[in-house]
Amino acid sequence: MQHSYRLIIACPDKVGIVAEVSRFIAERSGWLLEASYHSERESNRFFMRNEIAADSLSVSIDAFEEEFQALADKFEMEWYISDSSRPKRVVILASHASHCLADLLHRWHRKDLFCEVPAVISNHQNLKSMVEWHGVPYHYVEMTKDNKLESNAKIDALLEECKADVIVLARYMQIVPPELCRKYAGRIINIHHSFLPSFIGANPYQKAHDRGVKLIGATSHYVTENLDEGPIIEQDVVRVSHRHTKEDMVRFGKDVEVQVLSRGLRYHLEDRVMVCGNKTVILD
Amino acid sequence: MQHSYRLIIACPDKVGIVAEVSRFIAERSGWLLEASYHSERESNRFFMRNEIAADSLSVSIDAFEEEFQALADKFEMEWYISDSSRPKRVVILASHASHCLADLLHRWHRKDLFCEVPAVISNHQNLKSMVEWHGVPYHYVEMTKDNKLESNAKIDALLEECKADVIVLARYMQIVPPELCRKYAGRIINIHHSFLPSFIGANPYQKAHDRGVKLIGATSHYVTENLDEGPIIEQDVVRVSHRHTKEDMVRFGKDVEVQVLSRGLRYHLEDRVMVCGNKTVILD
Amino acid sequence: MQHSYRLIIACPDKVGIVAEVSRFIAERSGWLLEASYHSERESNRFFMRNEIAADSLSVSIDAFEEEFQALADKFEMEWYISDSSRPKRVVILASHASHCLADLLHRWHRKDLFCEVPAVISNHQNLKSMVEWHGVPYHYVEMTKDNKLESNAKIDALLEECKADVIVLARYMQIVPPELCRKYAGRIINIHHSFLPSFIGANPYQKAHDRGVKLIGATSHYVTENLDEGPIIEQDVVRVSHRHTKEDMVRFGKDVEVQVLSRGLRYHLEDRVMVCGNKTVILD
Amino acid sequence: MQHSYRLIIACPDKVGIVAEVSRFIAERSGWLLEASYHSERESNRFFMRNEIAADSLSVSIDAFEEEFQALADKFEMEWYISDSSRPKRVVILASHASHCLADLLHRWHRKDLFCEVPAVISNHQNLKSMVEWHGVPYHYVEMTKDNKLESNAKIDALLEECKADVIVLARYMQIVPPELCRKYAGRIINIHHSFLPSFIGANPYQKAHDRGVKLIGATSHYVTENLDEGPIIEQDVVRVSHRHTKEDMVRFGKDVEVQVLSRGLRYHLEDRVMVCGNKTVILD
Repeated sequence: MQHSYRLIIACPDKVGIVAEVSRFIAERSGWLLEASYHSERESNRFFMRNEIAADSLSVSIDAFEEEFQALADKFEMEWYISDSSRPKRVVILASHASHCLADLLHRWHRKDLFCEVPAVISNHQNLKSMVEWHGVPYHYVEMTKDNKLESNAKIDALLEECKADVIVLARYMQIVPPELCRKYAGRIINIHHSFLPSFIGANPYQKAHDRGVKLIGATSHYVTENLDEGPIIEQDVVRVSHRHTKEDMVRFGKDVEVQVLSRGLRYHLEDRVMVCGNKTVILD
Repeated sequence: MQHSYRLIIACPDKVGIVAEVSRFIAERSGWLLEASYHSERESNRFFMRNEIAADSLSVSIDAFEEEFQALADKFEMEWYISDSSRPKRVVILASHASHCLADLLHRWHRKDLFCEVPAVISNHQNLKSMVEWHGVPYHYVEMTKDNKLESNAKIDALLEECKADVIVLARYMQIVPPELCRKYAGRIINIHHSFLPSFIGANPYQKAHDRGVKLIGATSHYVTENLDEGPIIEQDVVRVSHRHTKEDMVRFGKDVEVQVLSRGLRYHLEDRVMVCGNKTVILD
Repeated sequence: MQHSYRLIIACPDKVGIVAEVSRFIAERSGWLLEASYHSERESNRFFMRNEIAADSLSVSIDAFEEEFQALADKFEMEWYISDSSRPKRVVILASHASHCLADLLHRWHRKDLFCEVPAVISNHQNLKSMVEWHGVPYHYVEMTKDNKLESNAKIDALLEECKADVIVLARYMQIVPPELCRKYAGRIINIHHSFLPSFIGANPYQKAHDRGVKLIGATSHYVTENLDEGPIIEQDVVRVSHRHTKEDMVRFGKDVEVQVLSRGLRYHLEDRVMVCGNKTVILD
Repeated sequence: MQHSYRLIIACPDKVGIVAEVSRFIAERSGWLLEASYHSERESNRFFMRNEIAADSLSVSIDAFEEEFQALADKFEMEWYISDSSRPKRVVILASHASHCLADLLHRWHRKDLFCEVPAVISNHQNLKSMVEWHGVPYHYVEMTKDNKLESNAKIDALLEECKADVIVLARYMQIVPPELCRKYAGRIINIHHSFLPSFIGANPYQKAHDRGVKLIGATSHYVTENLDEGPIIEQDVVRVSHRHTKEDMVRFGKDVEVQVLSRGLRYHLEDRVMVCGNKTVILD
């Protein structure tokens, strides 16, 4: 992977943004490996992602950043620069189901997901050995009806300690408290085992089986305080038939879940996902 | 298409049904072109479809039918025999949108859907010439807020006159009155322009756009008195992104709608769809 | 559809192209409805598509075009401006199969494909009435083993007369002579009824059936002198099984063919397809 | 999973097979959990799969088997009975690529693939620890240009020792010698990283990239002496675009490969795959 800086911008839409940003980059000899933008008409918001070859720049990235502020101010930008060589720190929260966790760890291990995994946190013990084989610390945090407040405080502390950039709920099955949702807004990714907004809440495969749908799906989305209603990052489906039991659906669903979660996480790690109201813009 | 008889059976599940039915057919020299069955565990219902080469039978189909009654009684079967050479009579109810109607008529015209189309009924005039070019009578039935009772009575009379076997709602956009739903139970097929149970009711593409889903879909289902909640026959989806407007979704959706409606209708015309509670069993 | 001008560019890749092109547009108050570019690393070619709201420009499009030439020269651009309100002229060449032709005509008729269809040319008579119902002239050009030269000259003359911008081979089944391929390079779109490069040449469904593949497909591509080897625009597939006969595959395949051809043609009509060697870049 | 016996049959097609087989089962009180058959018209072969609840039978499976022989002889059947509670023994041959191997081991480990894995054999050392963490013995067999004969003899001996029922080539990248192909005919499953018959042989992703296809795929198939030409069990594809490098394709392709290989293996383990000439019949 080539070393690059990603310049990410969101601002009110106006004539001339692309011109001025591109000029700014070109004046510093920046070679665009990739660039894309999107103009959201309803909200009149403009989104831009520029991927600039690091070794092409004639100034340091610090200077670039400092000088860019004037432009950012002019167009009222929310913006940041991300260094492609700095892996984001992904903490995975899991329960007893292994498929999403094992898939993410294996992708990371074989270097198909560029990130660090400083910790897995779980309210079950069964996946400890698998996680530790990957060289990742495993934190067991017991979660009972009575200790949720305390346990969530422990998790919050662990996340701080790990300097988590991103939190992945890999079939975590626990509700994330509102204050954590706010603290990590736009940085907690959940996998829901249905094609949202169908079958919100518990037991989606049972509900899908009962309704007799011909496709089942999965959805990765940012977690907000409203369960299963955050901005959707990625979705996919797989065909089922009357021959399939709920157990078959659970099994098929796992394959869709790992795809949808890993694709959603990848988009996030590559700074491609921008939240616009309750939707996402994926700049690829 | 080879001339065949389709023996369709639904009954409580028991040991020996396949054996006795197969023996019955074999004793009359019946050559099975295709056969499939399904045992629905929850309801303990058994479903069977046998497609028998017509020219292989050593008895007339009338004799076959008469003799089969004893077996049917023994196993408490609901059953019927369908003659593949007799086209079902499909009446299409349409509104002003042309895509599903034109698609069905063209499939029928090029002989990819085996049926008769004795009439198209519509509350708009705009598709008259297109329908009539296909040699199909077009009945305009005005539908206003005040004449619904009268207009639905006219439609009922037209359906009787046409000896409709199947009614297809090709983006009809009108509510079918409950008594008509009951009269043609399991024989009215609707296309809903969303992946049910998502986005029930009006304006599903607008709702899909507002929710920011990454796939949009369509569903063909039997019409019951509960709007958009009848047994699902077929579904499919297509990928969309933040770049797509609601109008793009409407346009993409049309392609999914015609696929899903024509596949659903085909299954029905080939006597492959069996209703089991609020679900379908598709014997293919 | 909003009135826009599409500025389409291909040139050697260099720092500063986006900046200068964007500045040029912004200086003339051009509002970008959509913009995308691609840098092809192997060939070091840069491709760009800007869609500019027509009513946002502070200069006439003629002035814009004239003034742009200096920039184009500087970067050695191949370029053109396309007016979204001017429909391209699409001549369809067909044989006796109706599905692709009927689909394209119906999309055009219901205003889902923005173009003009000045003529359909065919070596069969059977689709005349259907084409003429759409108000499109139908030209029968007999094609025998002995009159190919003469017939192709007639077709060439008809294309001239129709001022064809694009030629669509809608299951045309005849070989286009090399000189016509060259004359309309990058403007003849064929639909091949297989997932290329599988099953090149005649009878692909038979070959697919014989090989026992589990998916069949279709490919729309630009026609070059090498049969079935031109740049691929779009492809798709559909699942089949051992239960399906070759005839079933032909029928399923029609649905894929119409999708793949109409999507490919739409990309072309919207000036989204750029040829790069033997590949295409689709700027969407 | 319910304990069952699977009665698998292939024979020349005739009237009465289903009747007699079903009667045979019913007379022994056999409850059919699932049954399907297929009549291959071109070769006039009949294929049947009956899944019988073990505890429903009024006779022992040995008696069942012995008594069935008369029927089998009458219809010239190739047949066998498979016990669903006896896991098949799957030996995996791997190279240095981990994705297919890790995926299969994880599915087996989380009990989504019912089988035993007595050994992994590889010509590389890098995956030893991962395999051993799963509790599976890892056999390193060095493979050089000069020792192929000897190494293949070692592999043959290991397969014997492991009593392999099935051999999976999980991106093995070595040619299986013809005598091994014959010895385990219909029992060696390979994953080829293209949508066969496209891109046979080495470097299919490079070839796909060079050709500019819009979908890439993978194929699981039985291994025969003709490389990449054995009967296809399962295939799937994923969409790519001009934006994707060959490396992206390799990465996307891994997801398709694991899906296609694991589905193909599952069909085999459930005794659903029957070879008919150079094609497969999948009885599901």
